[in-house]
This record gives sequence, structure tokens and C-alpha cells, in this order.
Amino acid sequence: MASKPRWRSGLENAMALPENKGQMQYQLATVDTSGRPHVRTVGFSSIIEPAEHPHLPVLIGITDVRTPKVTDMRANPYVELCWFLTGSKDQFRISGPVRIIPSPHVESAAQGESTLALDKLSEQGFDWEKKRVAAFDSLPPFMRALWCKPPQGSTIGSYEVANEWLKTLSKSNQLESEEDKQNFELALRNFALLVIDPIHVDWVEAAASPQRRTKFMRNGEDWSEEFVVP
Amino acid sequence: MASKPRWRSGLENAMALPENKGQMQYQLATVDTSGRPHVRTVGFSSIIEPAEHPHLPVLIGITDVRTPKVTDMRANPYVELCWFLTGSKDQFRISGPVRIIPSPHVESAAQGESTLALDKLSEQGFDWEKKRVAAFDSLPPFMRALWCKPPQGSTIGSYEVANEWLKTLSKSNQLESEEDKQNFELALRNFALLVIDPIHVDWVEAAASPQRRTKFMRNGEDWSEEFVVP
Repeated sequence: MASKPRWRSGLENAMALPENKGQMQYQLATVDTSGRPHVRTVGFSSIIEPAEHPHLPVLIGITDVRTPKVTDMRANPYVELCWFLTGSKDQFRISGPVRIIPSPHVESAAQGESTLALDKLSEQGFDWEKKRVAAFDSLPPFMRALWCKPPQGSTIGSYEVANEWLKTLSKSNQLESEEDKQNFELALRNFALLVIDPIHVDWVEAAASPQRRTKFMRNGEDWSEEFVVP
Repeated sequence: MASKPRWRSGLENAMALPENKGQMQYQLATVDTSGRPHVRTVGFSSIIEPAEHPHLPVLIGITDVRTPKVTDMRANPYVELCWFLTGSKDQFRISGPVRIIPSPHVESAAQGESTLALDKLSEQGFDWEKKRVAAFDSLPPFMRALWCKPPQGSTIGSYEVANEWLKTLSKSNQLESEEDKQNFELALRNFALLVIDPIHVDWVEAAASPQRRTKFMRNGEDWSEEFVVP
């Protein structure tokens, strides 16, 4: 059985370092419908893999289905992220096909190119809705409330309008009032997973001496790696 | 006379804060010749403007003409950057046409779409070669030496090969041996400026209460701004 690619251990080790605490976000590049690039900060959620396929890890991020980045990814479902963990000076650039996993209550666009890892997960009957709800429930209360705001980037009359928005939102098993439940439903409807199937990874260890840079490429189910000039 | 756009003061103030010290780089998104996005860390150099045109600032970054990002930008001369200054939690996303300013000794590709600010600088006879040499001279000696390495991303036999590369390189007026001079010439030939003419700027002040997000757009020579949902 093929094994876990070395970049995955590198990324997981870097994430676990105390000096990288709180750096659970990366910059994600997309291409819009007119062919222009965009880059935005996205929150990391987890890495999973199909059962018995440790060589096919996928990266799960979180987003809002109402954002322009989702529109970009539906039109051009291939992305690259740059994750610079400043404490340890590890930089990971990861690219591959992307899929958006929205609420089942939201119209789901065609999901783009097939991807080995995501197709394998589907084949194994992976429960994406359970994963989506669990990811939402695991957020801190102030973050969950963000999915109740008007769509990001839409015009408001003044900055102070934001004072009227919901500040915190409980998790699914702690909702008390009818209002809480409605807010939770609204937020969960807007919440989506953004799943990347990595096929190229470029890892720079800038704190090493000499600096190290390694490129990993997946061909079919096999990972190869090479040392390159940093 | 039109005045300096408010985002520029915001960016310059954020850069000057002690809590943002050492954060002089951003993530730059480009589109490659097959239409796929890439995102890489790029070093900031300076902001300049055409004389008597404070409303047309351009951002100067530094790069190596031999890198794939330069190939991307020559094919698709429109970029977006995301600059998250983590100390003050200010995020600037800036997009617009880009131009590469290489050594006059390097074949210069067609420079893409015309841009208001860069055309104005040319019209005023701005000395780009002087600016390029000054930017290179202002780098610390260990950084200048990086432009003598083999091309970034090219394959090497082992990480240790890097131990043989040049460690430091003096500035133009402190070159002593013939070898120093040759190294300086080689590095300066590879060194290029990457100049972005901003036409959209999206500024998030995440530490403000409530959080603020402002979009700035340039139409012709005029900047407009609007408050939007963070």
C-alpha cells in the first residue's frame, strides 16, 4: 500500500509547533470568469484521506457559499494555496483541483473535474454532510456567527452597521430559543467546505541551514519528490 | 489636483507600526499560460508615484527574471496580491496591471497592457534603471547574493549543494576583487522590479471594533471608496 507523502508529515508537524500557534489560515489563489487572478485568506479546517489511501490526503478549508471566491472556483475548479507558517518559516504551496461542498439545501453547481481522492471518498460513501456540520460545530461561537452576516463584500452605509450583527452563535446541541435555531439554520446554510486534492506541493524550509526546498508531484497514485533551488 | 488615496496612507501607516516589523512581503497571485492560478511570496520594495500625481501610486516589488512567476506575468500581465500584516491585523488586497522591469541586458518581453500610472512615469522620463540598481543596492548583502544562485525551482542533487553558493554580495560601490564585480554583474542581470498599478484595493481592518472593510476603485484618475461587509 502506498504511504503518506512526506509533505503531509511536514505540514502536520509545522502546524503542531508552538511557534506557529494561531496560523491556521492560508492564502488561496483562484481565477475568475474573466481569467484574472484573485488571492484571499482562507481558514484551514482539517486533512482527511480515503480509508486505506494515506497517499491521497485532501485539505479541507471553510468558506461561505455567497462569496466571490466560490463563484471563481465553480467556474475554474483548480486552485493554488500559499501557507507561510512564520514561526518555523515553513512555506507550503499546494495546488490541485478543488470542490465546494455546500449545504444540501443550496443549489449545488456542477462540481468540475473529477479528482482521484474525492472520487475515492465518494466511492467509499464518505458522509460529507456530517463532516460539514462537524466542522461548523467545532468553530468558536464568535466565528459561527459570521455566517449570519450579509454577504461578504456587499455595500453597507457605514462601518457601524456591523454593531447590529449577531456576535455569537451556539453549537447545534446548545440552541435554546427559536431565534437561536433559526440563526443556526441560516448560518449552516451559508457554510461550505472547500476541499483541495493536492497534486503539486512545494515545501520551503527557510529556517534550515542550508535552506531546503522540495517539490512533490503526484502522478496517478504515486508521489515523487525532488530537491530544487530555494 | 487629485490627492493620495486613503488606502495608501493606511498601508504606509500599517507598514510603519512596530508590531508589523519584518513583514515586508506579500502573496502574489498570477495566472499561467494554461489559465491556472499560482501564488507566491514576493518582497516589497517601495511605493512611488509620477510627479504631481499622488493619486497614481505604484507598488514596486523585487523578483528574479528567471522565475516562473515572471513567465506568468509576461503572459498575463494582471495580478492580485494579498498582504496580511499580522501585528495590526490589516489585510490589503491590491489588484491591477503589472509590468516587469528587467536589466537592459536581458531580452525584454512585450510589456503588456498600458497602465495610466506607468505610462505617466514613462512620459515624465522616469529612470527605471537607476531605480532598479538602487533597489538592488539597498538589499542586505545576504539577499543580494540570492540572485547569483541557479534558477529557483531547478533540480539539484541534494540540499547540501546550496552550501557552495555565494553567501553575501557587496553593494555596487564596495566591490573589490574581479570576482566580486563579476558576481555583482550576474546578480544584477537577474534582478528585476515587478511594478503593480493598483486599480482595486480591498482593506480589512480586522483589529477595529467593529471590524472595518473598505473597497477602493480607480476609474480613470479618480478613486472612489465604499464600506463593505467584512
